[in-house]
Amino acid sequence: MSDAITAVYQIWGDQAEAAGRAAALAVEQSHEFPAELAPPHTAVSRGVVRELRPVPGGPVLATIDYPADLAGGELPQLLVLLFGNCSLLPGIRLVDLDLPQTLAASLGGPRVGLDGLRHLLGAWDRPLLATALKPVGLAAGELADLAYDLAVGGLDLIKEDQGLADQPWAPFDERVQRCAEAVATANAETGGRAIYLPALNGPVGEVDRRIALALDAGAGGFLLVPGVGGLDLIRHVAASVPPGVPLLAHPAFLGSFVTSPTAGIAHDVLFGLLLRLAGADAAVFPSFGGRFSFTPEQCRAIADGCLRPFAGLAASVPTPGGGMSVQRVPELVDFYGPDVMLLIGGELHRDGDRRAGAAAFRRAVQPTG
Amino acid sequence: MSDAITAVYQIWGDQAEAAGRAAALAVEQSHEFPAELAPPHTAVSRGVVRELRPVPGGPVLATIDYPADLAGGELPQLLVLLFGNCSLLPGIRLVDLDLPQTLAASLGGPRVGLDGLRHLLGAWDRPLLATALKPVGLAAGELADLAYDLAVGGLDLIKEDQGLADQPWAPFDERVQRCAEAVATANAETGGRAIYLPALNGPVGEVDRRIALALDAGAGGFLLVPGVGGLDLIRHVAASVPPGVPLLAHPAFLGSFVTSPTAGIAHDVLFGLLLRLAGADAAVFPSFGGRFSFTPEQCRAIADGCLRPFAGLAASVPTPGGGMSVQRVPELVDFYGPDVMLLIGGELHRDGDRRAGAAAFRRAVQPTG
Repeated sequence: MSDAITAVYQIWGDQAEAAGRAAALAVEQSHEFPAELAPPHTAVSRGVVRELRPVPGGPVLATIDYPADLAGGELPQLLVLLFGNCSLLPGIRLVDLDLPQTLAASLGGPRVGLDGLRHLLGAWDRPLLATALKPVGLAAGELADLAYDLAVGGLDLIKEDQGLADQPWAPFDERVQRCAEAVATANAETGGRAIYLPALNGPVGEVDRRIALALDAGAGGFLLVPGVGGLDLIRHVAASVPPGVPLLAHPAFLGSFVTSPTAGIAHDVLFGLLLRLAGADAAVFPSFGGRFSFTPEQCRAIADGCLRPFAGLAASVPTPGGGMSVQRVPELVDFYGPDVMLLIGGELHRDGDRRAGAAAFRRAVQPTG
Repeated sequence: MSDAITAVYQIWGDQAEAAGRAAALAVEQSHEFPAELAPPHTAVSRGVVRELRPVPGGPVLATIDYPADLAGGELPQLLVLLFGNCSLLPGIRLVDLDLPQTLAASLGGPRVGLDGLRHLLGAWDRPLLATALKPVGLAAGELADLAYDLAVGGLDLIKEDQGLADQPWAPFDERVQRCAEAVATANAETGGRAIYLPALNGPVGEVDRRIALALDAGAGGFLLVPGVGGLDLIRHVAASVPPGVPLLAHPAFLGSFVTSPTAGIAHDVLFGLLLRLAGADAAVFPSFGGRFSFTPEQCRAIADGCLRPFAGLAASVPTPGGGMSVQRVPELVDFYGPDVMLLIGGELHRDGDRRAGAAAFRRAVQPTG
């Protein structure tokens, strides 16, 4: 817990220069104004280097305290404060974060979170299971049939692909109504609790209308793309929907923040802490061993960022995906442990029977049925 | 001009594998579904590699055509399509872009642009001049006094710092009303046309209210932070305001996209083409020779991306800043040419008389004025 907003940065490069660079960073992120020219009474709004810790052979760790009022209680400004200008500076990486619980609580964090999702799904003793509706190009009715099959197969979260928007093949309104109805039908037939999550990736001015339409149709949650829509869009949606509507964050367009080991934002901070702060109940990320390049260590860090204590906020659900298969489920459960949501998309279709593919996925995590 | 949405990617790494990686990329960004499992009729919605060009000693250049309908006419989905998942892939950089003029026109692009800003300011024969109101921690009245002095000094755009939001020292509503009034007073006294641009960096649900309040108060434009709020927020604001209200994009939080030379998005595409597509009339970026690390070549590329013909859209104004000074103005004008807006913030205060600092800045670009 902290009375300030605290950020820890790795400062790469010449260790002899690190103290000066840390002091400049504290000013850059808060005042962005020469300290010697700032009116003395404004010193209360300037960041302060609290600690400098040299790491032999590695970057210096600089802990900077920012007055909590600098965020003005708003997430966009908090992000500008933590990483705005310094995203443009070489050799600086945001690697940890803390903030007052009152500020975190006012932003809200995950409303459903790990425990809430388990409660909604009645799934207390196993990893959660998600899949994606795709490819784009299917008609709304075809996507609804697919959603039905995957729900009957026993999956928990039927989310739309981040690439489904308002294309002519399956316009948002028609698609969402048909898919929500299909999943409701499946649940009625099986007694299941599958949740359908449309992709909420439209223009700013369309967001509220699409939320209302989707909830009215029976959608149970939403997929968001904060790399494109901004993290505050998650917060906005979380604050707009009734209790018990989980929000999944998709990592599209976020990869560049973690590409360089000497710049950007650490994996656990971005996909864990920051997405939780915004209100994501689950964070999708590309697991090791799939089509993408995250290492096992990076994936473990993300899971830790989703689950570890942070500013009094609920835990989110680490959701590894990106080229996973049913065959890999035991390995993934072994690696991530039970507090995880596994996401398998295209590979459930591999044997030509997606309902059977979904059922096999479900059996793979719950062998005792 | 193009009938498709065309993206050019650098593919770094093993050239022998590049053809396979390009083909996988075209699928990843569109279908994200195994091609052999996708229903045949969905092939119309899949990206296609149009050209592969090996570059000796460098990355392969892959040109991919995406069916224009994949964007669904919406900017967020266009961004997911161009760079969503591949932000998470190693060794892939988005380096060029084209799209149908009809799609670009429907998104809107810069409504004011370079010519519009010159017209608004009556400044046809010189670089444009901008400054920033800061530091955070000043009271609303102090910021208004500062805005007055800088406008009297002869500057064109008085923008707020990206770090001004709704903090207790100068809450948004009071600050904007007082600053707008101060700049109007200055203009009335000098006959000038200075434009005041508040920072529009609040929560999603506050945006429309703040736009209305600011316009009502007499603000002439807005500063936006697309790295935090999303590029579609620029488009939303551009579509919401009356004609003749310029929008400046600030680069905070965008730096990670250009950090790595072998990943992310090329400088000219991000700060030039994509921001123009979103509707930015001017793009602030950190110039070479200041506190940041962009090279002269990268800065020249950004200016080119702002100004070169692109999908029938208006040019935006390259706006280098970040530790500039009046002394450097001749060098900067020589480098960037006349179609530029120079941004100097804190250094105008260096001699203790900011009005004189602003006037010196103005004289430096218009010696015969």
